[in-house]
Amino acid sequence: MSLEKKAIVGIIMGSKSDLPVMQDAIAILKKLEVPFEVSIVSAHRTPERMFHYAKSAGDRGLKVIIAGAGGAAHLPGMVASITHLPVIGVPVKSSNSIDGWDSVLSILQMPNGIPVATVALNAAKNAGILAAQILGTSSEDLAARILAYKDELRQAVEMNAQDVETTTF
Amino acid sequence: MSLEKKAIVGIIMGSKSDLPVMQDAIAILKKLEVPFEVSIVSAHRTPERMFHYAKSAGDRGLKVIIAGAGGAAHLPGMVASITHLPVIGVPVKSSNSIDGWDSVLSILQMPNGIPVATVALNAAKNAGILAAQILGTSSEDLAARILAYKDELRQAVEMNAQDVETTTF
Amino acid sequence: MSLEKKAIVGIIMGSKSDLPVMQDAIAILKKLEVPFEVSIVSAHRTPERMFHYAKSAGDRGLKVIIAGAGGAAHLPGMVASITHLPVIGVPVKSSNSIDGWDSVLSILQMPNGIPVATVALNAAKNAGILAAQILGTSSEDLAARILAYKDELRQAVEMNAQDVETTTF
Amino acid sequence: MSLEKKAIVGIIMGSKSDLPVMQDAIAILKKLEVPFEVSIVSAHRTPERMFHYAKSAGDRGLKVIIAGAGGAAHLPGMVASITHLPVIGVPVKSSNSIDGWDSVLSILQMPNGIPVATVALNAAKNAGILAAQILGTSSEDLAARILAYKDELRQAVEMNAQDVETTTF
Amino acid sequence: MSLEKKAIVGIIMGSKSDLPVMQDAIAILKKLEVPFEVSIVSAHRTPERMFHYAKSAGDRGLKVIIAGAGGAAHLPGMVASITHLPVIGVPVKSSNSIDGWDSVLSILQMPNGIPVATVALNAAKNAGILAAQILGTSSEDLAARILAYKDELRQAVEMNAQDVETTTF
Amino acid sequence: MSLEKKAIVGIIMGSKSDLPVMQDAIAILKKLEVPFEVSIVSAHRTPERMFHYAKSAGDRGLKVIIAGAGGAAHLPGMVASITHLPVIGVPVKSSNSIDGWDSVLSILQMPNGIPVATVALNAAKNAGILAAQILGTSSEDLAARILAYKDELRQAVEMNAQDVETTTF
Amino acid sequence: MSLEKKAIVGIIMGSKSDLPVMQDAIAILKKLEVPFEVSIVSAHRTPERMFHYAKSAGDRGLKVIIAGAGGAAHLPGMVASITHLPVIGVPVKSSNSIDGWDSVLSILQMPNGIPVATVALNAAKNAGILAAQILGTSSEDLAARILAYKDELRQAVEMNAQDVETTTF
Amino acid sequence: MSLEKKAIVGIIMGSKSDLPVMQDAIAILKKLEVPFEVSIVSAHRTPERMFHYAKSAGDRGLKVIIAGAGGAAHLPGMVASITHLPVIGVPVKSSNSIDGWDSVLSILQMPNGIPVATVALNAAKNAGILAAQILGTSSEDLAARILAYKDELRQAVEMNAQDVETTTF
Repeated sequence: MSLEKKAIVGIIMGSKSDLPVMQDAIAILKKLEVPFEVSIVSAHRTPERMFHYAKSAGDRGLKVIIAGAGGAAHLPGMVASITHLPVIGVPVKSSNSIDGWDSVLSILQMPNGIPVATVALNAAKNAGILAAQILGTSSEDLAARILAYKDELRQAVEMNAQDVETTTF
Repeated sequence: MSLEKKAIVGIIMGSKSDLPVMQDAIAILKKLEVPFEVSIVSAHRTPERMFHYAKSAGDRGLKVIIAGAGGAAHLPGMVASITHLPVIGVPVKSSNSIDGWDSVLSILQMPNGIPVATVALNAAKNAGILAAQILGTSSEDLAARILAYKDELRQAVEMNAQDVETTTF
Repeated sequence: MSLEKKAIVGIIMGSKSDLPVMQDAIAILKKLEVPFEVSIVSAHRTPERMFHYAKSAGDRGLKVIIAGAGGAAHLPGMVASITHLPVIGVPVKSSNSIDGWDSVLSILQMPNGIPVATVALNAAKNAGILAAQILGTSSEDLAARILAYKDELRQAVEMNAQDVETTTF
Repeated sequence: MSLEKKAIVGIIMGSKSDLPVMQDAIAILKKLEVPFEVSIVSAHRTPERMFHYAKSAGDRGLKVIIAGAGGAAHLPGMVASITHLPVIGVPVKSSNSIDGWDSVLSILQMPNGIPVATVALNAAKNAGILAAQILGTSSEDLAARILAYKDELRQAVEMNAQDVETTTF
Repeated sequence: MSLEKKAIVGIIMGSKSDLPVMQDAIAILKKLEVPFEVSIVSAHRTPERMFHYAKSAGDRGLKVIIAGAGGAAHLPGMVASITHLPVIGVPVKSSNSIDGWDSVLSILQMPNGIPVATVALNAAKNAGILAAQILGTSSEDLAARILAYKDELRQAVEMNAQDVETTTF
Repeated sequence: MSLEKKAIVGIIMGSKSDLPVMQDAIAILKKLEVPFEVSIVSAHRTPERMFHYAKSAGDRGLKVIIAGAGGAAHLPGMVASITHLPVIGVPVKSSNSIDGWDSVLSILQMPNGIPVATVALNAAKNAGILAAQILGTSSEDLAARILAYKDELRQAVEMNAQDVETTTF
Repeated sequence: MSLEKKAIVGIIMGSKSDLPVMQDAIAILKKLEVPFEVSIVSAHRTPERMFHYAKSAGDRGLKVIIAGAGGAAHLPGMVASITHLPVIGVPVKSSNSIDGWDSVLSILQMPNGIPVATVALNAAKNAGILAAQILGTSSEDLAARILAYKDELRQAVEMNAQDVETTTF
Repeated sequence: MSLEKKAIVGIIMGSKSDLPVMQDAIAILKKLEVPFEVSIVSAHRTPERMFHYAKSAGDRGLKVIIAGAGGAAHLPGMVASITHLPVIGVPVKSSNSIDGWDSVLSILQMPNGIPVATVALNAAKNAGILAAQILGTSSEDLAARILAYKDELRQAVEMNAQDVETTTF
């Protein structure tokens, strides 16, 4: 796998069709200046590749893994079973999902001993932010960028609020 | 794994706590005279063992695998991703399950390409019967035993019916 | 019923409107070179036809039945109650279904004694693969074709992975 | 089936274990003086018996059928597919049911053309009252007994109300 | 309410927006030659009108009431609480409904004493057929028309089956 | 109905079996010194009584109505349809309820025009507090008692926190 | 926050994207002549603003707060935790919601001590009416306007009913 | 708050009744030698305390916060809205919860910008492990202890497997 060398976050997804959802993780990590790599790893169609990816992740320098999958979504949990790195799971509402419930439950409800840090349905952006927060526990610079980002969110709401408050209904 | 040599059905479960449920598969396979082996294989706590079990199952002579698991139940689907044998999944309503919905959905909702033959919640007996039916497609003797079993079911209902019909309400 | 003579898999569905979903079973069985027949059998509108179909299936040479239905989907379970052959159920998300939950539960939750091998919602392709896996338990040729198919799935993911890994995000 | 000759309501259930729930239908029909018969008919374990029961029901003098079943509950719908009589379905929360949802959906969600008059989960009493209301459309005497019963319900509430209103909290 | 004089089935709905769904009840009753009346009665916006409608229904000659409503659908249950006639409830998946679950549960789950004969979500056609079946318990002519209708359903499936069986896939 | 004369909150419930749940509303209203009356009013078994209760509530001096019911819970919504007073609905998880979902949805999902202020499942205490808050909009004394109550809640948490913080784990 | 001075109802929402839903609250309050203010307050992106808004609401003259939010909707409950005013929660079916269930449950299921008066999914109109009903407990004028509005609702149904009753089907 | 000085993980819960569930987080953090503090912080009953806790957490030296809550569980999300530290949410199946669905959805479904790392229902142990994994991204010693713990899990399964494999069924 010829991935970016300095990546510290690995973003993987079960299918190329998950990419539009997972782009949000890519975008926010770029904004927060966290180096990452992106690949497709299917627990069900490429189990050996998945095994290899998870097993080698720590040695290759990754610190956090973000894994998105839909339906009976086993990728995040299986990666978490193999690596000791924190794994963030993104339940994807794929076309073969029952309203997203299967994606959510098969990622969230991991047994004792093997956690997956699950975010909301399709919330790849939050997966990226959470990865940054995790890395921010040992990087004051990154923590500062997260704080600045939170401030942007605040300001955007306040601007919208001003618009609404000055509207005549 | 020092399992029974002539076994053609492999019964596995994610945790020893699933054994009381999975006993029903054992009992019906014994009744239908189908040789089997039983073990514990956790997708999450023993991923390499799971990998090895699934990879070697066909060569060891297994024809069908029955896999029971609860919560974010990845065992049946992961075994199915590795072997070409038919895999029957038993959703177990374990203590950490949300009313069984997580067990059911994470076994049933497999993506295209990798089916798991899912039976009802806790229905290990039906998993055993289904394994026998699968093997019965190439064994007239076994097919005959299944027919005899279905006849037993019919007779039991008819006896109960007679009881009820002769009751004075 | 003037169906194909050598068929060993019977594909039935409750309504002609299920055909677009069930086409995926047809396509994969053709690819895997498994002879099949296709018909419409409604448990509710043609109960006698259903009865006759299930009763005669084994004698006509069928080894596996794939039954798709939606809403209060009784076709797979009723066929399974009559024949001793393995029955694969495909829950169809038909127009009169409540998000597919009724289709799934009324096929999956069969009582002890009468299993239906249930696949994911609308997953007729997986029903076809499962039928092939069942028949592959007594056919090395077919088992080899299934392994080749699984290898195709793997290669397709790996090609997509290469695309993504060489993309500049 | 040596059932009561003059019965005009047939009460059937899929398993003897449904009898405690179905007793409520028996009790209210006795109270409303509607002659009935009781039997066990399993769609899945005795499909031919079910077929025969439904086919002969009208000729034997039955006017309404009450059918109770749990899990993938096919009995009410299958009986309705065979007979032209009105069929009342009682979803039973049996031990193999997922909180009753499977029982409810597989009875309620019948396709166009084949209705089942579904009552609440375990509500066999209401099934009995509904049967009486149906028969009351052509019997003024029975209609009067139903009105009297509704008046009893009213009086019981009013007595409880008086108790509560005179309680010092 | 200047409704048709000889009507024996009353079709009511909570809102004019339910009419497209309820048209199916109208069509099938016309086909089965059952005289009916149609009106709008809102339990929540016209409670007195609802009260009056239900109270007078029997005296006006109605034998069965079909009531359709969506969301917190109280119309069928409230009408059933006031009249002794059988009431058929049609859960409508209206725009303010949560996937139809609210409509279904608030019609189906009536307390002991006050049944509503509930049909599937949006299944007004089945409500019409059920009304005819109820009236058919005292009309051999109507029962014959229902049998003929069931035969039409059978024939339509068989024609579709023939089409599919002669298709080359 | 010989209820307390000066009551300004009316607490009603569909069945005497709801009283243990509804006691929490009684207790908190006593604590907050809000005069109330208690009765049983069943929408389904005493529709005329319900009608009369709701119609006369305002004239009898009531300002707010708290209505608890379970299953297909029509009482809160029907009372709200008749009176112009604010109605607070308490979904009760009664024995005939499907895990409380029916109670919640049939109270919450009221159509446009007729709101019911719904509180959590079995949360009669919160219904009482909400009634007090509503009355507190025109009573500074009552508003002060609510503030004092909220302060008690805060203090209880802080005492528990101190316990936990000084525990050695 | 330069909001309207005399407002007695505060309408807030978690995001500007909730405005199309919340417009219904604005419209009905205008119709009922209840002065209000509108703003955007995000519990998650502007927690301090939320805190300040809730803390100062009573002193600024507000009597009732309507808060709309979607997904993990914390705004209504958090505002209710800070103010002693009655808070009405509107669950919004936002784009990141799982069919609205998350919005509904995270607003409705408040713990004992801190009620939120929850209305139906997206039912901002009902939130406005409920606010008016609450204020109507101490304003006979407003109560009269609510009664007039309920009469309008009744008349609209009756006109539609007349249309339908005079239609030839 | 006189909490342990060197704590780097803060464990909080909405109510003392959550302590039995949250003990699992305490136990695993002790085992993995991660210093922690424990307290009770209610978003709804002590909003100012919650605000202060979250605001000061980073300055007090905490690196990760574990927050457990049930029902409309706002604590994890609100803490995440105030701090930039990673927050792990534990949905607790408390007595006032609807089968845990409310707890899960109101923690998991956070809006874009404010993630909560959600673990399975009642899975406080996994929350502790996840906290350790997060801290392990910058501590090789801790990472080694996590690997050792995963090895213990593996060994326990293998011992159980040996037991089962040598059992005569």
